[in-house]
Amino acid sequence: MAERRELAIGIDLGGTKILAALITKDGDILSNLEVETLAAKGPDVVYQQVVSSVHKLIRESQVNKNRLLGIGIAAAGVINMQNKEVIFANNTGWRNMPIGELLESEFELPVHLVNDANAAAIAERIWGAGKGAENLVYITVSTGIGAGIISDGRLITGEGDSAGEFGHISIDVNGSKCGCGNRGCLENLASGTAIAKTAKEKLRNGEYSEFFTETDSPSAEEIGKASLKGDTFSQKLLKETATYLGVGVTNMVHILNTGVIVFGGGVMNLSDILLPEIKKTVNQRGIPSMVDRVNIVKSELGMNAGVLGAVGYYFEESGDKVLASTEK
Amino acid sequence: MAERRELAIGIDLGGTKILAALITKDGDILSNLEVETLAAKGPDVVYQQVVSSVHKLIRESQVNKNRLLGIGIAAAGVINMQNKEVIFANNTGWRNMPIGELLESEFELPVHLVNDANAAAIAERIWGAGKGAENLVYITVSTGIGAGIISDGRLITGEGDSAGEFGHISIDVNGSKCGCGNRGCLENLASGTAIAKTAKEKLRNGEYSEFFTETDSPSAEEIGKASLKGDTFSQKLLKETATYLGVGVTNMVHILNTGVIVFGGGVMNLSDILLPEIKKTVNQRGIPSMVDRVNIVKSELGMNAGVLGAVGYYFEESGDKVLASTEK
Repeated sequence: MAERRELAIGIDLGGTKILAALITKDGDILSNLEVETLAAKGPDVVYQQVVSSVHKLIRESQVNKNRLLGIGIAAAGVINMQNKEVIFANNTGWRNMPIGELLESEFELPVHLVNDANAAAIAERIWGAGKGAENLVYITVSTGIGAGIISDGRLITGEGDSAGEFGHISIDVNGSKCGCGNRGCLENLASGTAIAKTAKEKLRNGEYSEFFTETDSPSAEEIGKASLKGDTFSQKLLKETATYLGVGVTNMVHILNTGVIVFGGGVMNLSDILLPEIKKTVNQRGIPSMVDRVNIVKSELGMNAGVLGAVGYYFEESGDKVLASTEK
Repeated sequence: MAERRELAIGIDLGGTKILAALITKDGDILSNLEVETLAAKGPDVVYQQVVSSVHKLIRESQVNKNRLLGIGIAAAGVINMQNKEVIFANNTGWRNMPIGELLESEFELPVHLVNDANAAAIAERIWGAGKGAENLVYITVSTGIGAGIISDGRLITGEGDSAGEFGHISIDVNGSKCGCGNRGCLENLASGTAIAKTAKEKLRNGEYSEFFTETDSPSAEEIGKASLKGDTFSQKLLKETATYLGVGVTNMVHILNTGVIVFGGGVMNLSDILLPEIKKTVNQRGIPSMVDRVNIVKSELGMNAGVLGAVGYYFEESGDKVLASTEK
């Protein structure tokens, strides 16, 4: 007699590494591993790495294949959720990649595909910092800025499954031009890339730092460390960053009347510095009746948000309705 | 034998007038009327006027009461949809007004309450300029700016039923302070009030107009008329206004991946001037794959959007699912 099917495989496809995990319906990670993405070797090699990661996970975990319900995969880029295709992704070089179909025939299991920020939103909603929240936005701040939106217990996908391009809202109509064509984009002002770029510019312009010279090009992480050690230059820069993020969050709250904002991504390793300033800005700028309902928190799932969200989305799409609330 | 119940009453409660209409499930308005709101006489009189409008509508239309399914009411302000209460509304002076309960006992009919911008979004989605759109945003530009959002065929309400505060997104982080506490709010830059205020300031500062002197205080409507007659001053001002609106729309599109944007409200009587410039800005600033899916149009239902949307929401909440798509 076959064991009860209850497990799914979650894959988080990043530009540097692929995370794969065997996950229960309760969000318990039974087994996980990572393999290199090898993006530089081209899109076909990336696909082979994804396949290898799943084979390896099944082999190493010694799971009975009968227990596997399906596979959820989270990936960056423009995605067609219905067709399970990655239309366009910079980090893997994939173009019109029918990853769902390919994995389905490779593993004879149903597959669902979701954008990585959406996956993180789903995971934090079901098992993380936003447990039980009907209205949640997950915001990732790393080299870029993106978001996954859950409204009234449902993932907001939009017309082309691209909702949540939070990094490209303009908060400075006359600001500097962004690669996307817009001006004053949040990503240009407050991402990890922006922090490093602004630091370099300010140092070149002769602004004094106790830690950096005018020829230095510190990373966001280094700015964070210097800030903790008392560097006024770095502290001021991160305060500006947090203000921009707070203005962006206020816009999001005003549009969506969000309940929980979960911050994740590499730059949020500086959350002890950034979050208090973000909250302060939101409180100063937001409509009180809306701000009163907002809880701004740090991701609880961290690195696992992608694989968990991929599986959460898989269960949701398979009719388990893990995402939707039971009652409102 | 009673006739088949198939009609609902829609009420659009404004600060100046109350519109009431008898509407079929197909969105046909069989009969309608308006009465004065008499807001200056206090909240109780406003309630009496609402009641009168319904009595009068039933009387004048000679409808058999058995055919009435219920009442939908659209109102501005902060609303609790579940409890059918107007928590706070400036235009009527209502505070914690249990309008749903009151009308239910007055007319012995079920009542549903919806925010006026949300009502307009629903109406345009079912019967108007956004027919069939799964992802639609209705934007009203009049003395203020607000929005109603439909995503994947569902109204976005948010944590406190206040989603769509589009007028209070900041597009200028260092801009002038808004009454809401934020800076650089869209409403402060592009509403009818903002057009009039900016015109006055520019004229006082000595900017030359062919139509206005430096002591004039033209309204948005007058600026529109002067613009059509060739006044460069007015044309330039409206172009600026449209650019701001375009930046706001781009933000909305990037967050929600919207398909249809429907513009309504008094200032949109100038849509021939404003819409082309709004579209131009969105095309210049938006992410191409997202902008390609956006259709920016003028409201088709105009003054009737409120009563129609109130009834559309009534049907939706009563389980008729007029709003949701049949299939995706």
